[in-house]
Amino acid sequence: MTGFINYRKVLIVGLGLMGGSYAEKLSSLGFEVGALARRPETLDYALRKGIIAHGRTDVTREYVSQFDLVVFALYPHTFVDWIGRYQDFLKEGAVLTDVTGVKRAVVPAVQGMLRPDLEFVPAHPMAGREVYGVENSDCRIFTDANFIITPTERNTPEGIELIRTLGCILGFRHIAVISPEEHDEMIGFLSQLTHCIAVTLMTCKDTEHLAEYTGDSFRDLTRIARINEDMWTELFLENRDELLSQMDLFLEKFRTLRDDLAAGDTEAMKEMMRLSTRRRAAFEK
Amino acid sequence: MTGFINYRKVLIVGLGLMGGSYAEKLSSLGFEVGALARRPETLDYALRKGIIAHGRTDVTREYVSQFDLVVFALYPHTFVDWIGRYQDFLKEGAVLTDVTGVKRAVVPAVQGMLRPDLEFVPAHPMAGREVYGVENSDCRIFTDANFIITPTERNTPEGIELIRTLGCILGFRHIAVISPEEHDEMIGFLSQLTHCIAVTLMTCKDTEHLAEYTGDSFRDLTRIARINEDMWTELFLENRDELLSQMDLFLEKFRTLRDDLAAGDTEAMKEMMRLSTRRRAAFEK
Repeated sequence: MTGFINYRKVLIVGLGLMGGSYAEKLSSLGFEVGALARRPETLDYALRKGIIAHGRTDVTREYVSQFDLVVFALYPHTFVDWIGRYQDFLKEGAVLTDVTGVKRAVVPAVQGMLRPDLEFVPAHPMAGREVYGVENSDCRIFTDANFIITPTERNTPEGIELIRTLGCILGFRHIAVISPEEHDEMIGFLSQLTHCIAVTLMTCKDTEHLAEYTGDSFRDLTRIARINEDMWTELFLENRDELLSQMDLFLEKFRTLRDDLAAGDTEAMKEMMRLSTRRRAAFEK
Repeated sequence: MTGFINYRKVLIVGLGLMGGSYAEKLSSLGFEVGALARRPETLDYALRKGIIAHGRTDVTREYVSQFDLVVFALYPHTFVDWIGRYQDFLKEGAVLTDVTGVKRAVVPAVQGMLRPDLEFVPAHPMAGREVYGVENSDCRIFTDANFIITPTERNTPEGIELIRTLGCILGFRHIAVISPEEHDEMIGFLSQLTHCIAVTLMTCKDTEHLAEYTGDSFRDLTRIARINEDMWTELFLENRDELLSQMDLFLEKFRTLRDDLAAGDTEAMKEMMRLSTRRRAAFEK
């Protein structure tokens, strides 16, 4: 079976913010979207809103085996566990993808145990929000975001092309294909390190008496300090070595700036600020 | 002379982004606004745009002595130098204020040498932007910002009230009165530390190949990494001890998070994230 149009029945496993947003968009495009969720209320809400066509809280062969494309929108370890327990229920030749924010801890584990007739094409939609749950689903979060596909040598060109098409119809602005290793380094720096900084800023000092003076700078740097502690702790741990080296890189440079300031080395400080200004200019949208 | 309405003639010393924005707003309210600027082009631009009524590039007694209220929008050391050289030109009983982003390095120096008939009421309009110069003047930057007055025992209730009224008519959302010491601690943490972090993030790694993957988090944390290196280096140095202790506070906490991650101490990480989330909620606008 080739061609995206043949993957008409899509199963979303895990109906949170991301799973719900995938479901919303795919339903609106005419796909038949089913879902597995832990809580009946989640399914009730999604059915009422027309986000899914049907759903289950229990995992049965009868239900799962009807789907051509399966999207895993779970925490990393839950995803790996699910494959170990239920992959036998999946339809022959089904294609699997995910939304997991770390890749080295997930991709080899899943691909290594997968039935040979199945293909798992890993992806990371970089479109998180500070809110969670299906109630906050909104497929507009994809519009200005990046969709990263992280295939390995176990993937086929057809499988990668299928998931590229998925990213495209979901509405992502930019689709990239990189290795799981490149992904984890990138995400360690751009996303996990920034969350570590925001959390540190928000906790290193009692800021209550400062709230009324807070300007845009502090607000910008701490927006992501409202954080789902279960999800982010797991993401950090699943990318521990990479995140630690990004944190150490940051620590070293921050300490250099601190020492330059202590020594009154204005030329070193200005040089750092000039580099910062030049580099940031390249990031303007 | 009492009552804001009697301070009809206002001199802006230094016509950059902030001086120009003060001038624009005060002119629009009917004040007669004059200016001292280094470059004739700056005055030409401001005259053409109706931001000022008149201006000079040279400092003369004849020009300076006509003003009731004088706003210093200079770098810290330039401001202190100006007072030392030209305060004799100022009109008897004139009130002085400033926009300087550090206070302990400026307020005692200026108040300590000031003629007894003059009053300097220090203020800090927390409304910076990543752009500079009179061409970017825009009094709308005040609308959602804080105006901090940092008086000492040398100030009079009338002087403080006058500058409070100034902040009010400029359009600031919130006006606060705190000591120069409280100000410098607050600004060291909320503004200077955040700029140090942004500059560090932007320089600790070659980010060129990451630009296309950059999501909102990294963009938010580095917006202020485009920075005027002369101004910020001076602001950092003029608040060195306070900024160093804020940086050390941040370093210590960041290192704790790093070590918790290295040790796999999930409970400590989650506790930090829960505190972060609770505290950040109080900062929502």
